[in-house]
Amino acid sequence: MDEDAPGATGGPKSTSVIRPTDEASLRLARRLVREGRYAALSVIEPDGGHPFVSRVLTGTDIDGVPVILASMLATHTKALLDDPRCALLLGEPGRGDPLAWPRITLRCVAERIVHDSESDARIRSRFLRRHPKAKLYAGFRDFAFVRLVPKSASLNGGFGRAYIISGEDLVIDSPLNGYLGVQELQIIEDIARRRGEGADALARHYFHEKTDNWCINGIDAEGLDLARKEKSRRIDFTNRVSDLNGLIEEYSNLLNRCGEN
Amino acid sequence: MDEDAPGATGGPKSTSVIRPTDEASLRLARRLVREGRYAALSVIEPDGGHPFVSRVLTGTDIDGVPVILASMLATHTKALLDDPRCALLLGEPGRGDPLAWPRITLRCVAERIVHDSESDARIRSRFLRRHPKAKLYAGFRDFAFVRLVPKSASLNGGFGRAYIISGEDLVIDSPLNGYLGVQELQIIEDIARRRGEGADALARHYFHEKTDNWCINGIDAEGLDLARKEKSRRIDFTNRVSDLNGLIEEYSNLLNRCGEN
Repeated sequence: MDEDAPGATGGPKSTSVIRPTDEASLRLARRLVREGRYAALSVIEPDGGHPFVSRVLTGTDIDGVPVILASMLATHTKALLDDPRCALLLGEPGRGDPLAWPRITLRCVAERIVHDSESDARIRSRFLRRHPKAKLYAGFRDFAFVRLVPKSASLNGGFGRAYIISGEDLVIDSPLNGYLGVQELQIIEDIARRRGEGADALARHYFHEKTDNWCINGIDAEGLDLARKEKSRRIDFTNRVSDLNGLIEEYSNLLNRCGEN
Repeated sequence: MDEDAPGATGGPKSTSVIRPTDEASLRLARRLVREGRYAALSVIEPDGGHPFVSRVLTGTDIDGVPVILASMLATHTKALLDDPRCALLLGEPGRGDPLAWPRITLRCVAERIVHDSESDARIRSRFLRRHPKAKLYAGFRDFAFVRLVPKSASLNGGFGRAYIISGEDLVIDSPLNGYLGVQELQIIEDIARRRGEGADALARHYFHEKTDNWCINGIDAEGLDLARKEKSRRIDFTNRVSDLNGLIEEYSNLLNRCGEN
């Protein structure tokens, strides 16, 4: 592992040290990956090995691994079929200095998902809840989902805040993944039916959002994905859960903390 | 040259054809490069050849070539010193679907600028007018400017609007470059002294901006860079100019068109 981080050009102090990874940096790294709606994908072109970079929509699989929906005709897809190594830059700047905003670079290996497999169904359902407009072309046979499995990451939390994150720290390793992969939509619909206003309460309490009509569009063993129009918000559970009771308890705790139950 | 463009996953029609390059697509390509304030830079890491991508601030040289200010400790700088081939993704999305917004991928070769050279002075001056906060670290000896000379580009103007652009079409080839490279700041200051409100008039007329205190922070043989806080706006001259009289005439024409003179 090299001793520097991406965007280390950010400031005089940012190049000197990698900070020790702590809970806050892990939380930030995971949030950047899981809240992301789009990213810059870097690949190596097959003919001559020139680097290439393009914008892609991103989602996550039930284990937190980023996914893209790739056209077989796109430059990046052809490149990934030839060499599955790639890098993904997530985390978009807001107003002011772009280098003051946190971003993360994941070094990944791409895994193409077989059409009509269980993984395809699970990833498709999650991705299209995050990007409903992608339904227009997601069904075409020359599009396929691709998992971009992180092997390591460089987190730049803003000037002078560089961290190295392991790939494992970005993957959700839970015995509940298999169950959630099949039952996730059912659980989301159950939650919405029983307390549909819960998502608004969460958005209000945890993110000071003033709008209504938030929905939960993802649930995994480490937390919830909230969404409203093009906005994504990630809420982490206090602990990673390993069974359904744990999930229900963590969800209730989140609601309790914002005065709902 | 391959027959597809970056982000071709954008829609069902976007993968089928590359459109013929026309004046509008060239203008869009140049605007994305010259208005850009930051970009995703894709490189190949020296150890093992893994692709890497990070966020960089961008400016342009007097000939329109993108430049970055690189820390010698940054991952992307080490990579570029080992293999100068890189790719740059410019053009940021606004609200709504990220793939509906235009972006361009440049395939570039990096050229490190020698400290204290004429090129260094010219690029430094331009870059720091665009990014005044970079003055904090631009003087450090382990930072250097790097020109990213475009060899070809893939423009994606939004769904179904893909173009291949040549590197030459993004470079300003004018006999005036040498003069402007030395005299640019003087010209900008002259303009500001004689009609300081001119930049506001241009921003109002060409971009419907309602704010005051715009300034010209770059002038080259193809047009002007307007700026206000973190906003950049590019105005093209009708024709590329080759001498100072042509420049003055084109600038006057711009002002005349918005009722100023």
